[in-house]
Amino acid sequence: MSTQATADLLAEVQALIHEREREGVLGLAELIGPAEWADLVPQLEPNEVAVLIQWLPDEEIGEILEELPPTSAAQILRTLSANEAGQLLGEMDPDDAADVVDALPEEAVAEILVRMKPEDAEEIRQLSGYDPDTAGGIMTPEYVAVSKDATSAQAITAIRRLVDEAETVNYVYVVDEERHLLGVLSLYRLLLSGASTPVVQLMAPSTLRVKASTDQETAARILTDRNLLAIPVVDDDDHLIGIITEDDVADVIEAEATEDIERLGGSQPLNLPYRIASVPLLVRKRVGWLLLLFLAEAYTGTVLRNFQDELSAVVDLAFFIPLLIGTGGNLGSQTVTLVVRAMALGEVAMKDIAWVVWKEIRVGVVMGLAMAAVAFGRALILNVRPGVPEVVALTILAICIWAALIAGALPIVLRRLGVDPAVVSSPLIATLVDGTGLVIYFEIAKLVLKL
Amino acid sequence: MSTQATADLLAEVQALIHEREREGVLGLAELIGPAEWADLVPQLEPNEVAVLIQWLPDEEIGEILEELPPTSAAQILRTLSANEAGQLLGEMDPDDAADVVDALPEEAVAEILVRMKPEDAEEIRQLSGYDPDTAGGIMTPEYVAVSKDATSAQAITAIRRLVDEAETVNYVYVVDEERHLLGVLSLYRLLLSGASTPVVQLMAPSTLRVKASTDQETAARILTDRNLLAIPVVDDDDHLIGIITEDDVADVIEAEATEDIERLGGSQPLNLPYRIASVPLLVRKRVGWLLLLFLAEAYTGTVLRNFQDELSAVVDLAFFIPLLIGTGGNLGSQTVTLVVRAMALGEVAMKDIAWVVWKEIRVGVVMGLAMAAVAFGRALILNVRPGVPEVVALTILAICIWAALIAGALPIVLRRLGVDPAVVSSPLIATLVDGTGLVIYFEIAKLVLKL
Repeated sequence: MSTQATADLLAEVQALIHEREREGVLGLAELIGPAEWADLVPQLEPNEVAVLIQWLPDEEIGEILEELPPTSAAQILRTLSANEAGQLLGEMDPDDAADVVDALPEEAVAEILVRMKPEDAEEIRQLSGYDPDTAGGIMTPEYVAVSKDATSAQAITAIRRLVDEAETVNYVYVVDEERHLLGVLSLYRLLLSGASTPVVQLMAPSTLRVKASTDQETAARILTDRNLLAIPVVDDDDHLIGIITEDDVADVIEAEATEDIERLGGSQPLNLPYRIASVPLLVRKRVGWLLLLFLAEAYTGTVLRNFQDELSAVVDLAFFIPLLIGTGGNLGSQTVTLVVRAMALGEVAMKDIAWVVWKEIRVGVVMGLAMAAVAFGRALILNVRPGVPEVVALTILAICIWAALIAGALPIVLRRLGVDPAVVSSPLIATLVDGTGLVIYFEIAKLVLKL
Repeated sequence: MSTQATADLLAEVQALIHEREREGVLGLAELIGPAEWADLVPQLEPNEVAVLIQWLPDEEIGEILEELPPTSAAQILRTLSANEAGQLLGEMDPDDAADVVDALPEEAVAEILVRMKPEDAEEIRQLSGYDPDTAGGIMTPEYVAVSKDATSAQAITAIRRLVDEAETVNYVYVVDEERHLLGVLSLYRLLLSGASTPVVQLMAPSTLRVKASTDQETAARILTDRNLLAIPVVDDDDHLIGIITEDDVADVIEAEATEDIERLGGSQPLNLPYRIASVPLLVRKRVGWLLLLFLAEAYTGTVLRNFQDELSAVVDLAFFIPLLIGTGGNLGSQTVTLVVRAMALGEVAMKDIAWVVWKEIRVGVVMGLAMAAVAFGRALILNVRPGVPEVVALTILAICIWAALIAGALPIVLRRLGVDPAVVSSPLIATLVDGTGLVIYFEIAKLVLKL
């Protein structure tokens, strides 16, 4: 590492420690953990990373690589020899290692895996077969299982032997000869039981389990809803193949929330920390939606053109265009974020559509009345042509109800069609309300002003 | 419970089981857990809840109450006798019970607490003193601690005794006579050690810890970043007063993400599930922002009025108003959600402002050029007055850069001022860009069309 880079790194580390102290976090000796390193690594040049890797023990580098996005970790591994890369992969949790392997080109994978311990390589190879967004993709094969014929004492011996390898020893799983999952017992029950008690007497049978193909979010939600520390993952024939632990869950919840937020803002999900995302990547993820919305918005020009005569007759009407469509977009934006979030948290499902829409329409009416009163006053102050304040007030009430209606219903309808409801972003609702709002505006104007 | 309500409840339960089966979740016997009940309870009438409570064992009701928002749990407790309420509170985790107590009127609290076991009541009383958003508010006092003079065997005895009460026995904390936190040792290390080994030899000293006043999000982030199962909480004099466990963390991460999403959509945080939020509550949380944005948007009328002459001279200019300000709002919306989320995840801090703004401006330039090309074509198709297509294209480039600039900088500046950056919602950015975008538009029009 260059002297400058080292100095910068130390300065960052110190700033971090000061910030943490201010936040009330004590215990400085441990403050720079893998996640902090992972935050700093992307700021280093490749050759600096190479030096850093010689500087830290293998085990710690493994932990840092676990915290990095798989593509970044793969880039770092590619700067190393196949031997070194294999050693580091072996230090990582197999589920994280598998994600990194998925991000490496195939010829590099083959070269690295042959240099690893055969059992480690086999684990990684199996895990890399699962979609990273499923239970199979986030599970780890490092659990403790005992035969159904074992006693309590034998189970404790198994735990002692596996304590360093297993990701959690809070639960011990009981399986038959063919590794079918029979039940689970907690370490606590084991500690409390007599040495010769058979495990089948201690275990809870018909244990909750998920299939490897289950969506990771579903698996995560079950774990948190039930306050479990781990959940077993089985294949289609109910063979135990791995477990998902609580520390995977927080990451899943955070990643899914990030994805929803990005979609709601009108981007495709970055799937990468913003910090690392390059300008071309940001453009790629955003320009598609922006163009689509532009094309959708372009019809507002046609709408205005069709009402050209009304607009020329009463130019005052033009003053309120941004205000009216803006308010519709704002109200729609509020509705859509609340409904999409409620769906993500499992509070609202397809069957609730009538209930949601009815709730949002009532909200739209109340808010529309309040806004109409203010808009009426604002139009009077602007001293516009008689009749225009009434038109503006009526329009804003109608637009509020209309925006609440489509923003409440659209996410639920899209979910029904198999589309992520979060694609109904604030910009999309604003765009939809813009043109339709203009039509409402000019139709009311024609009616009231007798144009 | 009325027959109808029971039938409805059973139908819901069955629908849930079918949905879970489809998602690949097996183990039906356990499928209806506390969180599922908590989802159903708000749909029942108070008298139905009273019947449900007689129907389920106390322990399960305690778990259901833990999953409900504290205000809803408090409402249910108020329908019961002080004796019953005390019994249920005693079954709950003390940290959740304290949140419920905070939501009860003071006279009810006094009446319930005197009917509880004195040590349970004392725990709840202490915990209810902490702000629910801090480490003190989410910690539990149910941990295992041993004296620094204890041996490994004594520590294991302590764990066996506390196994049912403590929230986690993965870690055992070592304290001195005055309960100062000296270190931590894992259950795994205990299991591997000889019976007479002193705990001080096994423990990791200078353990990471947080103060009770630390923000809950900071504490949660440390737990996930370090993959810890629990973190100790100390008071200002470093006395151990509780621990935060992993299952609290997932809830914190989810709640903070929900709050950010609601703010980004232009509402105040509901602090309640959408499912339970009433229409008046929804209006209250949303109407303030909507009115504020309305007032901010109202100046667009003044802007248009000031450019009335230009508008009358070239009516064609009016056709592009929604398109131009809409695109600025959309691009700003993308930027603001990405930046706010990056700040929430700790990727971007105050010192990064120049870097973020420079990145977003480059994105704005690239996207602005693409949009300008399309806008130019669109204006040609509309067959407008010569010069107008050039004005539209130039304006869209300028607005894209302008929107990227303020949407990138504003959240960071606000954080600096101590304001939650998520208040820079998509609607706020759209509103800010609307009026300023119009000024840019007409100034460019005056220049190019020589008006």
